Amino acid sequence: MDIATIVGICLGLFLIIGSILMASSLAIFIHVPSLMITFGGTIAATLINYPLAKVLGVFKVAKNVVLFKLPEIDQEIDRMVDYANIARREGLLSLEEKLEELEEPFLSKGIRLIIDGFPQETVKNILQIELEYMEQRHGTGKGILDAMGNFAPAFGMIGTLIGLVAMLQTLDDPSQIGGGMATALLTTFYGALFANLFFIPLAGKLDTRNREETLMREIMIEGLLSIQAGDRPQLVAEKLKSFVAPDIRRLMEAKKAS
Amino acid sequence: MDIATIVGICLGLFLIIGSILMASSLAIFIHVPSLMITFGGTIAATLINYPLAKVLGVFKVAKNVVLFKLPEIDQEIDRMVDYANIARREGLLSLEEKLEELEEPFLSKGIRLIIDGFPQETVKNILQIELEYMEQRHGTGKGILDAMGNFAPAFGMIGTLIGLVAMLQTLDDPSQIGGGMATALLTTFYGALFANLFFIPLAGKLDTRNREETLMREIMIEGLLSIQAGDRPQLVAEKLKSFVAPDIRRLMEAKKAS
Amino acid sequence: MDIATIVGICLGLFLIIGSILMASSLAIFIHVPSLMITFGGTIAATLINYPLAKVLGVFKVAKNVVLFKLPEIDQEIDRMVDYANIARREGLLSLEEKLEELEEPFLSKGIRLIIDGFPQETVKNILQIELEYMEQRHGTGKGILDAMGNFAPAFGMIGTLIGLVAMLQTLDDPSQIGGGMATALLTTFYGALFANLFFIPLAGKLDTRNREETLMREIMIEGLLSIQAGDRPQLVAEKLKSFVAPDIRRLMEAKKAS
Amino acid sequence: MDIATIVGICLGLFLIIGSILMASSLAIFIHVPSLMITFGGTIAATLINYPLAKVLGVFKVAKNVVLFKLPEIDQEIDRMVDYANIARREGLLSLEEKLEELEEPFLSKGIRLIIDGFPQETVKNILQIELEYMEQRHGTGKGILDAMGNFAPAFGMIGTLIGLVAMLQTLDDPSQIGGGMATALLTTFYGALFANLFFIPLAGKLDTRNREETLMREIMIEGLLSIQAGDRPQLVAEKLKSFVAPDIRRLMEAKKAS
Amino acid sequence: MDIATIVGICLGLFLIIGSILMASSLAIFIHVPSLMITFGGTIAATLINYPLAKVLGVFKVAKNVVLFKLPEIDQEIDRMVDYANIARREGLLSLEEKLEELEEPFLSKGIRLIIDGFPQETVKNILQIELEYMEQRHGTGKGILDAMGNFAPAFGMIGTLIGLVAMLQTLDDPSQIGGGMATALLTTFYGALFANLFFIPLAGKLDTRNREETLMREIMIEGLLSIQAGDRPQLVAEKLKSFVAPDIRRLMEAKKAS
Repeated sequence: MDIATIVGICLGLFLIIGSILMASSLAIFIHVPSLMITFGGTIAATLINYPLAKVLGVFKVAKNVVLFKLPEIDQEIDRMVDYANIARREGLLSLEEKLEELEEPFLSKGIRLIIDGFPQETVKNILQIELEYMEQRHGTGKGILDAMGNFAPAFGMIGTLIGLVAMLQTLDDPSQIGGGMATALLTTFYGALFANLFFIPLAGKLDTRNREETLMREIMIEGLLSIQAGDRPQLVAEKLKSFVAPDIRRLMEAKKAS
Repeated sequence: MDIATIVGICLGLFLIIGSILMASSLAIFIHVPSLMITFGGTIAATLINYPLAKVLGVFKVAKNVVLFKLPEIDQEIDRMVDYANIARREGLLSLEEKLEELEEPFLSKGIRLIIDGFPQETVKNILQIELEYMEQRHGTGKGILDAMGNFAPAFGMIGTLIGLVAMLQTLDDPSQIGGGMATALLTTFYGALFANLFFIPLAGKLDTRNREETLMREIMIEGLLSIQAGDRPQLVAEKLKSFVAPDIRRLMEAKKAS
Repeated sequence: MDIATIVGICLGLFLIIGSILMASSLAIFIHVPSLMITFGGTIAATLINYPLAKVLGVFKVAKNVVLFKLPEIDQEIDRMVDYANIARREGLLSLEEKLEELEEPFLSKGIRLIIDGFPQETVKNILQIELEYMEQRHGTGKGILDAMGNFAPAFGMIGTLIGLVAMLQTLDDPSQIGGGMATALLTTFYGALFANLFFIPLAGKLDTRNREETLMREIMIEGLLSIQAGDRPQLVAEKLKSFVAPDIRRLMEAKKAS
Repeated sequence: MDIATIVGICLGLFLIIGSILMASSLAIFIHVPSLMITFGGTIAATLINYPLAKVLGVFKVAKNVVLFKLPEIDQEIDRMVDYANIARREGLLSLEEKLEELEEPFLSKGIRLIIDGFPQETVKNILQIELEYMEQRHGTGKGILDAMGNFAPAFGMIGTLIGLVAMLQTLDDPSQIGGGMATALLTTFYGALFANLFFIPLAGKLDTRNREETLMREIMIEGLLSIQAGDRPQLVAEKLKSFVAPDIRRLMEAKKAS
Repeated sequence: MDIATIVGICLGLFLIIGSILMASSLAIFIHVPSLMITFGGTIAATLINYPLAKVLGVFKVAKNVVLFKLPEIDQEIDRMVDYANIARREGLLSLEEKLEELEEPFLSKGIRLIIDGFPQETVKNILQIELEYMEQRHGTGKGILDAMGNFAPAFGMIGTLIGLVAMLQTLDDPSQIGGGMATALLTTFYGALFANLFFIPLAGKLDTRNREETLMREIMIEGLLSIQAGDRPQLVAEKLKSFVAPDIRRLMEAKKAS
């Protein structure tokens, strides 16, 4: 579970609600019609832009990103070096028995391609296509949340304009002005809040996760090709450690020494 | 027919009209001169920017995108694997009889090039040029709608400035201020609404569709080159499935098993 | 002559003037000092940014883009196929007599390079450099108009700030406020109008034209290299038609059949 | 220590505080709830977007960037030319004894790879992967500060909207309006100040430093490959001096002559 | 000397001062504390972002760009063709005597590399690295001015917020409102003016100049490599003229004919 994301959402809501309570009462800030035009308008524009299945899918993806973590990158490298050892000692075909315990589909596919004896160029080509189009698909999730992050303030402004025009037409009673303005501004408030506390940071979260997954798979591709080429396990380790930060490398060496 | 887009437009209009009715009356929000300057100005600026035929064309394209769906990607892959089977068993020339029933012009062209015996490099080159310039042309449609999405709020603001200046010149009668402001704000409202409920999401829709078509054609190119190279149908399938999401692959395997 | 651009400018001016006349009188919206600071400031900033010759040149370029049209793309392809026929039947040198009637300098240069017997790589290299730097030069025109499209609203705002500060200093007489505000807002109005009815759409127009010219020259390069390589005219036609939209292809085939 | 950054921060704070003291009193501008919503909201949104460890890490990185300087680029080049001399005179293996005194891990790794006799292509590949992913990791730091630079004004605006709505609901007492507005505007002030005096310039600083480090490592890679290829030290120097500004070159030649 | 830049700055100042004098008096628009926070804040944020030496350097660079012009591009091409003639007639080594009269360091370096007999690949590599990193260094100048163009309006807004908050706290005396607002708006005015009359156009100027220099050096590289390859002077001329606009070519041919 990704603590930071949940802490961030809770902290944000706590601060907003706290500010409202200090300045006024929560009841004033909850206005269902304003919520409907801001959130509903955002959803409407997003549905025009993206297929229904993908819009619904993005919330599932976001939930998964928050709830599940990727495996640690140093364990992934250790595993690849392990495989290189096995392949070196017992031949590439001996990797077959590892396939059964493997859950990660990308790595399984790569190992199967190697075992099947496809030439290096073909293996590289297939895995890179797979990686590229995975990135493209995951990019759609970020695209949907980014679009919602743009539409939310826009529909907030549209709601405020409707409220302002309605209020200005009935300017006769000055005592009504304040309340009318306050209500009109609520949609702008909702739009800014949805965009900046949910849509934009979640889009960023998906992007962060996408980069991590891509890095993981680039390490797998490099490792698999190195194993297929029959590189020494030390060289495989050297190559794969180039992808990661010095502190992860130091951690790995510390663990190895112990 | 693309349900989501139509649902999105209806939902958006319903919410906007509902909000207006709750706050005031619809009559106040319909003002023909304001509509003319916002929408007309947007069209005028777009005509300066793009050729007339393409501006008119974009509405036809948008309509088609909403009304027609692309074929399913798994069926397309099945078809390519089918062709690989035929080509493998009966030779490349036997694909000729498939040409007649084919409606998709890009795939027909590719098959004809293969049958005509052009070298792999030439086939790849011609098909990639075709794909690249198709993308460029379709990108124009998105460009036009994006431009309209920028011009609409700008002309909305221009209309509001005209209304404000006119109102400020006749500030003598304070009872007129409210109504003048309300009318002046209507063009800003129209501009924001046109941009965010129509132009920007439709531009996004065209982009989404363009990516799907591009993916479809990239699969076709990869498949055609693989068939021409005489790859085994299993390898063709393996290569093409690299382009698609794991759940589509699972679907394909489930169907095959049944 | 490019009708759409002229229609767009006339339509835009008509709508703006119509809106002004409906709301107030034209005299109120014509204010020479406001025009001077908005338009003059835009010109001043642009002159700091770009060499004088290029700023002056952009208006000539824009005029030419509006007044003259590019040749039709299908005729250009027909010409290249024609040349391929001649070269195939009578040898590359026979293209020399075509050179005299050719007005298009890029194509002439390419043919001359082929006739002079330079190797394929050299011809390709020289023509691509020429194309690349033509694109870069034409991009400057778009850059200047884009810069003006950014500076115009900025100087409009600067003008409004000057008017506001001056007005606020003399707030004693409330009857002056309206008129002062109205005048102050005029520069913002001018800035938005210049940017959105002239500079930004014309920058887009130049870009559209630049892409068309680039496409035309990419077709020429592909055709020339194909002719030099001694390709069959059918193959030359096949290659060049890959660059254009299916409806242009259908048009070409219809004409050929008739 | 990076004087300019510290001077910049002090100068900025001094000017802001000075302006406040000239216009009013500092007490009015310190409002803890406003600070909490602006800064806390920014932190909350950033935590949703990025892993906790990286958000905390960015402040350490920023501190290091301010406190420590990179070695001078001309000394780095001198060192590489030195190594080239040693390698040329005494063989590549003689570089081994230099390894012990070397603190820079990237250069050590490169030298070890050369000594171990890996082929040029492998050395280049490993070092470039290391450089590329170092850039990517360092880019995350800039990304976090850029995100904070976007969220701070957004939460400033959200705070102001809360204040405005609360104030407008209690418009009965006109004497309260001024103070309410003033407090509401404070969050916008904080947001703009945090973003423009801290987050955005520090993001830029990280980017500047990242480019310098990348340049340093590109020089190291070029130098190492040149040494491995057995280039004459003069050629190594010539190649490496191509990376730096003419005035640094002149400085190096002056030092050498003296 | 670059007339256009100086004309632009003078014209801009003249228009701004003229507008101020027409609307009010200059004294009202000169307010030292407002100037200090806007300009000082901009400098402070820029110092945090960039090293002190580079911030100071940018003003020297900007001055040089305004005061000195690049040599004409047609003369540069003539010179390269000249060298090609000499190299062709008297051998590459004969270029050595040209080195002494050459002031342009990039061209000298290239000629020296050719004379020293380095292989074509090495010469190309060294010169391209030099060009690439020169572009990167010059890009820093543009980056600094662009950053100032962003910070100036931001600190203008910060100043206005300080003024507004201070004013709103003392709303008791309505006669003070106008003057307070006017002063508060001055920083926004300064920020917009500095950004749009100085920083942004000067950043653009540096970019324009950078492109011209890059073009000049790309011509030199192409020419040097062509000379080294022993190309005929006519071919050298043909290649280099591909880089420039048709009207410069016509000019060159006219001069040659006369």
